[in-house]
Amino acid sequence: MLGLMQNWPLTVDRILDHAKTWHDDREVVSRSVEGPIVRTTYAQLHERAKRISNALLALGVRPGDRVATLAWNTGRHMEAWYGIMGIGAVCHTLNPRLFADQLCYIINHAEDRIIFVDLSFVPTLKEHRAQMPTVQQFVVMTDREHMAGVDLPGALCFEDLVEQHAPDATWGGFDENTACGLCYTSGTTGNPKGVLYSHRSNFLHTLVTLQTDVMGLSGRDVILPVVPMFHANAWGIAFSAPAVGAKLVMPGPKMDGASIHELLESEGVTFSAAVPTVWQMLLQHLRATNGKLTTLKRVVIGGSAVPEAIMRGFRDEYGVDVTHAWGMTETSPLGTQATPTHKIAALPYEEQLKFRLKQGRAPAGVELKLTDDEGARLPHDGTTFGRLKVRGPFIVREYFKGEGGDILDPEGFFDTGDVATIDEHGFMQITDRAKDVIKSGGEWISSIEIENIAVGHPKAELAAVIGVAHPKWDERPLLLVKLKPGETATREEFLAYLEGKIAKWWTPDDVVFVDEIPLGATGKIDKKVIRQRYQDYVLPGVKAAE
Amino acid sequence: MLGLMQNWPLTVDRILDHAKTWHDDREVVSRSVEGPIVRTTYAQLHERAKRISNALLALGVRPGDRVATLAWNTGRHMEAWYGIMGIGAVCHTLNPRLFADQLCYIINHAEDRIIFVDLSFVPTLKEHRAQMPTVQQFVVMTDREHMAGVDLPGALCFEDLVEQHAPDATWGGFDENTACGLCYTSGTTGNPKGVLYSHRSNFLHTLVTLQTDVMGLSGRDVILPVVPMFHANAWGIAFSAPAVGAKLVMPGPKMDGASIHELLESEGVTFSAAVPTVWQMLLQHLRATNGKLTTLKRVVIGGSAVPEAIMRGFRDEYGVDVTHAWGMTETSPLGTQATPTHKIAALPYEEQLKFRLKQGRAPAGVELKLTDDEGARLPHDGTTFGRLKVRGPFIVREYFKGEGGDILDPEGFFDTGDVATIDEHGFMQITDRAKDVIKSGGEWISSIEIENIAVGHPKAELAAVIGVAHPKWDERPLLLVKLKPGETATREEFLAYLEGKIAKWWTPDDVVFVDEIPLGATGKIDKKVIRQRYQDYVLPGVKAAE
Repeated sequence: MLGLMQNWPLTVDRILDHAKTWHDDREVVSRSVEGPIVRTTYAQLHERAKRISNALLALGVRPGDRVATLAWNTGRHMEAWYGIMGIGAVCHTLNPRLFADQLCYIINHAEDRIIFVDLSFVPTLKEHRAQMPTVQQFVVMTDREHMAGVDLPGALCFEDLVEQHAPDATWGGFDENTACGLCYTSGTTGNPKGVLYSHRSNFLHTLVTLQTDVMGLSGRDVILPVVPMFHANAWGIAFSAPAVGAKLVMPGPKMDGASIHELLESEGVTFSAAVPTVWQMLLQHLRATNGKLTTLKRVVIGGSAVPEAIMRGFRDEYGVDVTHAWGMTETSPLGTQATPTHKIAALPYEEQLKFRLKQGRAPAGVELKLTDDEGARLPHDGTTFGRLKVRGPFIVREYFKGEGGDILDPEGFFDTGDVATIDEHGFMQITDRAKDVIKSGGEWISSIEIENIAVGHPKAELAAVIGVAHPKWDERPLLLVKLKPGETATREEFLAYLEGKIAKWWTPDDVVFVDEIPLGATGKIDKKVIRQRYQDYVLPGVKAAE
Repeated sequence: MLGLMQNWPLTVDRILDHAKTWHDDREVVSRSVEGPIVRTTYAQLHERAKRISNALLALGVRPGDRVATLAWNTGRHMEAWYGIMGIGAVCHTLNPRLFADQLCYIINHAEDRIIFVDLSFVPTLKEHRAQMPTVQQFVVMTDREHMAGVDLPGALCFEDLVEQHAPDATWGGFDENTACGLCYTSGTTGNPKGVLYSHRSNFLHTLVTLQTDVMGLSGRDVILPVVPMFHANAWGIAFSAPAVGAKLVMPGPKMDGASIHELLESEGVTFSAAVPTVWQMLLQHLRATNGKLTTLKRVVIGGSAVPEAIMRGFRDEYGVDVTHAWGMTETSPLGTQATPTHKIAALPYEEQLKFRLKQGRAPAGVELKLTDDEGARLPHDGTTFGRLKVRGPFIVREYFKGEGGDILDPEGFFDTGDVATIDEHGFMQITDRAKDVIKSGGEWISSIEIENIAVGHPKAELAAVIGVAHPKWDERPLLLVKLKPGETATREEFLAYLEGKIAKWWTPDDVVFVDEIPLGATGKIDKKVIRQRYQDYVLPGVKAAE
């Protein structure tokens, strides 16, 4: 027997409809790519997105067609998103930090028909135009004045489209499982693979993240998503902010400490979200300029593990609550968030820290399990390492065009490729990527755990740990350290710093000081490159291969 | 093109699975019907609910069968709910405050096969046993010791079922649109009509209410739902509390001020929800006993309009934030909540009050509109009255067995039967029931607005306003007042109190002091009864009908 409640498909156009109806004059403020701060409202953004929808229909875009964006976080980018998604086309967010080869691969694989592009990235597209045969049209996200300087033959001007088309497009009316967004994983192994979000998955992700124990956004918040819309949906904020009527502040192309600080203060931002490197830059800027944070209350940090120094710095120096979150492109992206439970909240802050630095716990709607290599479930005891697998309505089922084959286990869980522990409070901690874990004498050593501690050394700017071949133990850890400018240090200094903080047998066999630690397109340490560089490294006490 | 995200049906069994997995030792504390305080946990509740599922399967219950509960808010009642819903049967919550005739009508209309019943209501069922031909079995929600005193031939004992059956029942695995719960409206006109909730509608209602700007529940909360599970799903708290791992405190049969106060303090309750009369009783108790509220932070009040005196009393005397909410059985029930927007939050509290006393604003997932009698949309100007209509994924589409026929308008909105205004901040205010509105000289007068002001008079305990026939104006308002014990007052005193607070032409033509104002089964003022009593009332200055 079926229930008798209304059929109301969960399509994301309804989110912007809601914002327009109930929060019409709430602002969306952007640092534009052209330079000035630009102010709009949800009502205006809604109208302009409808005009973009009509422009796309006039250009022949049909439901299911892929329309890409190569753009910073701005109000125009949101207009493009909703304009594309509202008519059942698929918004493919391109990551401008990718190498041109990868970008072209992704554009071709997705068969993008149109690309909305910011002025910043026009040269890249022009240079590689010939390698994008499916692309019929470029839309430069600027006004007519700036269009004059654009060197991209045949490209359309965003503001022309807005002006030329009526705001009467019809949105929605299709199955909530209709594809809505497409985002490729950065692909540390093999080719990038596309995750095809549905309207339903994005809508449910929005509701789940809005819970008090997750992002807890309110209509009274002013939200600055530093995390890019091209990187796992800006953690859903382009949906969740309008869903509650929060003011949005978009950083555009400028994510340096000074620019972010300026926006935080001038716009009265209360909530922000970004990867650790951005917060590191902001902290450095604040300290250097004796800056203050007068309105910011909460920050969610994800994308890679939060160093303790950042969490403490924000709390102790600026009174800002930092919450650690974890997710990936395949999880829309929210998987877990380290919001204290009642038991953890009752602890002194010093004791809470241990838990707050973990990746956190799953909200209802995200299922987690740890398994061994054979798929058997492992205990939640806080020490047993296992493969982390996830299941839920906004977790990937298969990649676009079936790339990578069958990616679910027999229970329907997606293997994250991470190795993790889960403790008795339900707090998950990534101990490593499955492929980065160091297998020493049959036991696993977490490269990330050592890195996180090593980077806490006052002289360290970045640290990386990889496994290096060892004749007796198979692999042993090697620590690479990039020192802060002007610092010098010794191997012994770092080993002494680690002593007592990690198990003795985890102690790296050697420490190497480097000028640069390679980062991938999403700002994470690129272990693949490091492993290649050090594949022949000879650890102390080991005879060089002959 | 469809998205490629996981198929993860939104079924409510997953909510309790989540609580069991991640909040296993979080408590559910009940004041039992037998008397003592009983403590259990989500893990135990989950296991016992599974045993109840197996008991139901053994009794021949099949998907879609209706299994009723006639019970107070307790842990056992939750076990029955999840036990029924988990196997795809329909949990039909019976309201014990209904007259026996209505109860039998509803049981027969629903074709309930089994009724779970609290000790309190055994006599009612025994007396009317013969009028419930579809009912095959009663399960008394008690232990074997208390079963000895039960006079209901053939009835089963809840604790026996728990003991006799294994906890290995399989839950879920069906379409998320499967019927899950059934609740009849109190039916002020015509027969009661059943609202058939689906798993999907309950799950989505849970997520929407968990938002910070709605109930904003957290795993750190301790929640006391005074609002009964038999009354519009206890506003979803039996789902939303386990979804976040909040501690639940169930009041059982005792909802007087002293009993509620005792639980609030002894269990450290932070959040509660109830109708105004319960809060009125609690306030009176606190004042009479010089009681304190040391842990309670937030209260949601709904079911009928919140008198200003209650909102102020809780805030000024006890530091508790009161939020007004509105909903109905047909809306699962949450429709709106008067959580301040950023603009309202910026006002001094005195100016906020005007908005906080309204029924509030819609979260994403609830659409509201005001229309005239012809269905044309009316403006959101805060003064124009119109019929309030709602649409969304947890709003009724049709009543069970098609009762009442087609209940949606051409746009798919359900007509609430309320008359309301919506202001420029999106705050909706119920001005009346469509049938209670007083039509005076072609204009509408809100009976509720006058009542809410009149009840603020220091001598008033309750107030009701109805329209009485008038030869010139068609109808004019008559105010009925029940004074507080020991008080006396004059007509002139009350008319003077209203002066300046309502439009002059809204002033009641007469005031009648009464010993009793009749209340319906859900505790609301029963205008139908009052109108019958006063149908021949002659207003001052009007000649009696001959």
